[in-house]
Amino acid sequence: MKFKIIKKDKKTKARLGEITLPNGKIKTPVFIPVATKASVKAMSKHDLEELNPQILMCNTYHLMLRPGADLIKKMGGLHKFMNWNKPIITDSAGFQAFSLGYGKEHFTGKIGSYFVGRKKKPKAEVEKLALINDNFVQFKSIYDEKIKHLTPEKSIKIQEKLKADIIIALDECTSPFSSYNYTKKSLERTHSWAKRCIKAHKTNQPLFGVIQGGEYKDLRQKSANFISKLNFDGYCIGGSLGKTKKKMHKIIDWIIALLPENKPRHLLGIGTVEDLFNTIEQGIDMFDCVAPPRLARSGYIYFSYKSGGNIKNKFRYRIKNSKYEKDKKPLDPNCDCKVCKHYTRAYIRHLFKSKELLAYNLATYHNLYFILRLMEDIRKAIKKGEFLKLKKKWLKK
Amino acid sequence: MKFKIIKKDKKTKARLGEITLPNGKIKTPVFIPVATKASVKAMSKHDLEELNPQILMCNTYHLMLRPGADLIKKMGGLHKFMNWNKPIITDSAGFQAFSLGYGKEHFTGKIGSYFVGRKKKPKAEVEKLALINDNFVQFKSIYDEKIKHLTPEKSIKIQEKLKADIIIALDECTSPFSSYNYTKKSLERTHSWAKRCIKAHKTNQPLFGVIQGGEYKDLRQKSANFISKLNFDGYCIGGSLGKTKKKMHKIIDWIIALLPENKPRHLLGIGTVEDLFNTIEQGIDMFDCVAPPRLARSGYIYFSYKSGGNIKNKFRYRIKNSKYEKDKKPLDPNCDCKVCKHYTRAYIRHLFKSKELLAYNLATYHNLYFILRLMEDIRKAIKKGEFLKLKKKWLKK
Repeated sequence: MKFKIIKKDKKTKARLGEITLPNGKIKTPVFIPVATKASVKAMSKHDLEELNPQILMCNTYHLMLRPGADLIKKMGGLHKFMNWNKPIITDSAGFQAFSLGYGKEHFTGKIGSYFVGRKKKPKAEVEKLALINDNFVQFKSIYDEKIKHLTPEKSIKIQEKLKADIIIALDECTSPFSSYNYTKKSLERTHSWAKRCIKAHKTNQPLFGVIQGGEYKDLRQKSANFISKLNFDGYCIGGSLGKTKKKMHKIIDWIIALLPENKPRHLLGIGTVEDLFNTIEQGIDMFDCVAPPRLARSGYIYFSYKSGGNIKNKFRYRIKNSKYEKDKKPLDPNCDCKVCKHYTRAYIRHLFKSKELLAYNLATYHNLYFILRLMEDIRKAIKKGEFLKLKKKWLKK
Repeated sequence: MKFKIIKKDKKTKARLGEITLPNGKIKTPVFIPVATKASVKAMSKHDLEELNPQILMCNTYHLMLRPGADLIKKMGGLHKFMNWNKPIITDSAGFQAFSLGYGKEHFTGKIGSYFVGRKKKPKAEVEKLALINDNFVQFKSIYDEKIKHLTPEKSIKIQEKLKADIIIALDECTSPFSSYNYTKKSLERTHSWAKRCIKAHKTNQPLFGVIQGGEYKDLRQKSANFISKLNFDGYCIGGSLGKTKKKMHKIIDWIIALLPENKPRHLLGIGTVEDLFNTIEQGIDMFDCVAPPRLARSGYIYFSYKSGGNIKNKFRYRIKNSKYEKDKKPLDPNCDCKVCKHYTRAYIRHLFKSKELLAYNLATYHNLYFILRLMEDIRKAIKKGEFLKLKKKWLKK
């Protein structure tokens, strides 16, 4: 893997880069659509060819359980299995160790305020489906409740079998409700696992390390220093990003200040319009996020600032709302995707109300087109030295 | 509408024809995919453009309830609403008057033995959602339980608003468990409604009449004579086709013998491989059937006689079966559709097991391709005078 910085923004830390992999080049900043179980939900091969994402992310946890890494290896690896010949990155299953473990217990995501109106832990006890110790993560499969153990070595071995173009070291992702002491102890585990992953790593797949440390400055700095001294090809920022967006940006600033410039930085699991602009500005190169297709499947449609999108409405609206019943306009009047060229809001609303599968396809296509196109515009803006100008247009209040 | 017979098979009653409509020509025998709620389930615009069906069928009952005929009219009619510029036929809602009424009470479909192992009515009482009398069908909406009344005049009016290329007169579809006396009384109603539909019909949309009469020879003959003397543009064969395939073929023979040659004959709701061959042989020109996509969504994959399909396995197999877990072959090794070109059984099985939306898309595409391609082959065979030769290849025992 090669990473080249093509241009640095003069007023911010934003940068334009290029990652070269055997299966293709990736222009950064890049948004990576997620194909959790070896399929971008609701998208056909043809849709993906048109949308033309530069790289997809697949999920070690789900694929190791179903259909299993050995089967995918036998089928020639993920690219052949899912018929996708451009780059793929696989995660390490570290996020599922969190989301099925403390995430479940704390009823939270990566940012504490993520679940609206749930700033406190719910009182009811929840069974954790992932337990973690210094040696392994113990998963109870969401499919058949079987117990599976995942070690750093196994995570690497599985990702080798999957044959992704970029793989990620196993880490422990802490919760916004994890204490300083827990986070500190957990960080030692993540660092020891980082070393074990490097040791176990035998292929020439680029390997990314993950920086943890929760919302604690000294721990994040310690982690950034530690991970960046190991022989990783890129750095992921994972785990709790605090309880507010403001805190998230602080955390990212602490980390970026300590990372070398010559390797790509991937902010795991983040991808709203607002976050993309603000964290690209901080120097992030790579994003993966399930939000655009997941929101699409729930009927939330992205629309541009030109069409009424803003920070407050999160650049999205609910197509199932009765006010779109007779609306002849496309999903976003300022979008030139094929869905916006061919269909009205009234028709797509009808498909959602009727639970027609085409609804999920059309809304997903539009939302992915929207976000991929936005990233293209951001790259162009950085190239022209107009990143802040573009950001201002979108994020004006 | 024009209907031209291009060639008659010498050994059977099979015929090659052409229907000319303002939105396009249709070569018969034709299989009509069903877009019940203004969408062929799981198919994108691009998929449909590739599959290239000659005509689609939409459903008056479902569309009048949601999103409503007035809304579709406001949006410019079905073609504009769903973005499909080739012909559309709408049914009259007569079938739903049966399936939500006596079909529900008798727990049956158009052929009595359709529900395997259910030759008797179930003992539990079932609420009928459709009641019928000489004046109207009373529907309890499956969406909001509201009561709607449909008269022959209203059915025509709705189909006018939907702007289909071919519309169908409202009829009463009887059950395989309806008595002679009920069927006789019902037939009078269907005939009186046929006349009312012709009277109410004000546009130049071609209007098809429906022949009823259940499994009773004198009633079917009476109906064929009555309907064919009215000024209809084509004839549908509807209602109970008896309790066995043998009976179905007898019923069709009684009817066809009495129909004029110069108008198309549509066998409503029938479409297995076996039935297509056998009823085309009897002189049927048009078919609509939800089976290929519905079976696809349940994981039943069509395959040709060359790949092991036969009457016994109904030319289909269950992709979720564990024996396909590591199968690198395409769904049908003798199919050249894009799904068979690009994906393995192992991958598609994985998608089904993981409930990925792509599963329904790929399986539906393949099954529709299969059936549309089969119809093309049948038309070619009739043209070359080789219909029976092709039928023998497929239906050999």
